Amino acid sequence: MREESSAAADEHPPLSPRNADGAIDDAFLAQVQHAVAASNGEHLRRLIRGLHEADLGDIIEALDSEQRPRLIELAGGEFDFTALTELDETVRVQILQALRPWTVAEGIRDLDSDDAVYILEDLDEDEKAAILQHIPAPERVALQRSLDYPEESAGRRMQTEFIAVPPFWTVGRTIDHMRETDDLPETFYEVFVVDPAYRLIGSVPLDRLLRTKRAVLLTSVKSDQRHIVKASEDQEEVARMFEHYNLVSAPVVDDAGRLVGVMTIDDVVDVIQEEADEDLRAMAGVGSDEELSDTVAYTARGRLPWLVVNLGTAFLAAFIIGLFSATIEKMVALA
Amino acid sequence: MREESSAAADEHPPLSPRNADGAIDDAFLAQVQHAVAASNGEHLRRLIRGLHEADLGDIIEALDSEQRPRLIELAGGEFDFTALTELDETVRVQILQALRPWTVAEGIRDLDSDDAVYILEDLDEDEKAAILQHIPAPERVALQRSLDYPEESAGRRMQTEFIAVPPFWTVGRTIDHMRETDDLPETFYEVFVVDPAYRLIGSVPLDRLLRTKRAVLLTSVKSDQRHIVKASEDQEEVARMFEHYNLVSAPVVDDAGRLVGVMTIDDVVDVIQEEADEDLRAMAGVGSDEELSDTVAYTARGRLPWLVVNLGTAFLAAFIIGLFSATIEKMVALA
Repeated sequence: MREESSAAADEHPPLSPRNADGAIDDAFLAQVQHAVAASNGEHLRRLIRGLHEADLGDIIEALDSEQRPRLIELAGGEFDFTALTELDETVRVQILQALRPWTVAEGIRDLDSDDAVYILEDLDEDEKAAILQHIPAPERVALQRSLDYPEESAGRRMQTEFIAVPPFWTVGRTIDHMRETDDLPETFYEVFVVDPAYRLIGSVPLDRLLRTKRAVLLTSVKSDQRHIVKASEDQEEVARMFEHYNLVSAPVVDDAGRLVGVMTIDDVVDVIQEEADEDLRAMAGVGSDEELSDTVAYTARGRLPWLVVNLGTAFLAAFIIGLFSATIEKMVALA
Repeated sequence: MREESSAAADEHPPLSPRNADGAIDDAFLAQVQHAVAASNGEHLRRLIRGLHEADLGDIIEALDSEQRPRLIELAGGEFDFTALTELDETVRVQILQALRPWTVAEGIRDLDSDDAVYILEDLDEDEKAAILQHIPAPERVALQRSLDYPEESAGRRMQTEFIAVPPFWTVGRTIDHMRETDDLPETFYEVFVVDPAYRLIGSVPLDRLLRTKRAVLLTSVKSDQRHIVKASEDQEEVARMFEHYNLVSAPVVDDAGRLVGVMTIDDVVDVIQEEADEDLRAMAGVGSDEELSDTVAYTARGRLPWLVVNLGTAFLAAFIIGLFSATIEKMVALA
């Protein structure tokens, strides 16, 4: 299913993070463990360089809990903090608490805001504050604003990096702007057209931008924005809208109708997956907060009410059978 | 949540397909029903013009079954056949069987191939053949090739329209090509770089294309393609890969490694949703083929084994209690 290009294979030693079954490769993991144990930062960085965040996340989960923060400190700037978004909440929080706030601040500064918020949101208020104080003002304000939205709202999930241009720009000028600006979002699928107060006028998907001649005005190719997310909206509502209208990205506006961010399909897929999990757990009678990494004691506590109910109904059934035993005996005699 | 732009509201009468709760609006539906009943094609076309496929699909489901094909015939070229992909399988098949094969052929010719295949795949072989014979050769061959892949495989779900360019092209030439070609896919998120035999060399996401200067060669901005889908692969496998690596689109290759199509996230979201539904139904003991539109008799047939098992266990329990009634009586007496 996954093929490494031959060019990439030439650059690196012939080690792949995954074996033929798609699971983390034992030999690769052993090398990582060895490099961490020996504090061999150079070897570690060479191993994890260019790894996909999902693969890096799986490798971290495969390590012992005390090795995880050591890997991050050792790898330094080579460590992609996006990998932390791939971890179980419990594992992520343990790692973040073990790292210096400054390391975390440096690591999340380069991320898209939605990933940074995802990493920070499960920490205690003072832990968050300790990290945020190491982040320069403009980025800190944007992160804090997202964190101030309620849990599971669109405001928490949105990316605050987006491209917004005035309606009198042409296609050519917009493309030139993107070619010249360094500080663009990491990935984006549409360009938003806004008025001077940042109120949304419309949007232009990138494929339409690419097939339009340079001289054309944005206003004449923009779509009227029909699918808009409110920052206070519940993430489940947003997921439903994305599914229903097959969206890939949608603008997020505040109560005043000003553009404050963008929701993209990758975040929404995570939400769909979480909701499906919750439905399944609810049917299986398993609490929605349970995670694989939880201890047995924690899990048992969550299930205790059901265990008690089960015991109660068993007693009740035995008692009722007792009450009617004479009748039951007569019926058996008659049969 | 959804806001219609004021410009769009001026063009149309102030009727919206959905009410404030997001459900289909009764007044709008009544107008559609009236137009269909009165064979007023002009009014009908004005009502459904510019409707999103998902809204149009919900309106069709709200109609009586004999009105559904009449709406499509009446609306003519104004009817967007993509709306059929939003329907329950049973409803879709009923409509397609009621329409003339020529109407269906004309309707699906304009669609992306994945939608056309989705509409055709549940029909009988002879019904499919009757429709396909009205479609011109090149498009028919592409559709037939997708239909020949196994059910629930990537080959069935892929879109055969994509942009593939040679590696010696520059960014500027690629953009010019897109500006000059009329026959582009409806939506796309990346451009593929292929060799003369259409073997995949790499891909360039549109946002990267847009921020690169015109003179740059594609080979120097392309990503090595690491996440490749095989056409024969199961759709669930593909969905897992998309989730795991946060993909928005991925190339599909045949057994010889030649690029034959592209899978996009909107199809994958449908797969994730279907799989989650199947899991839930499996846990509830409901057959995975059941749909809301099925008759009670059909549904009961599917559940019959479970009903029989339930009956059997009830008899067994009663029998066993009978066997031990004497013991039960003694225990109650002792208590």
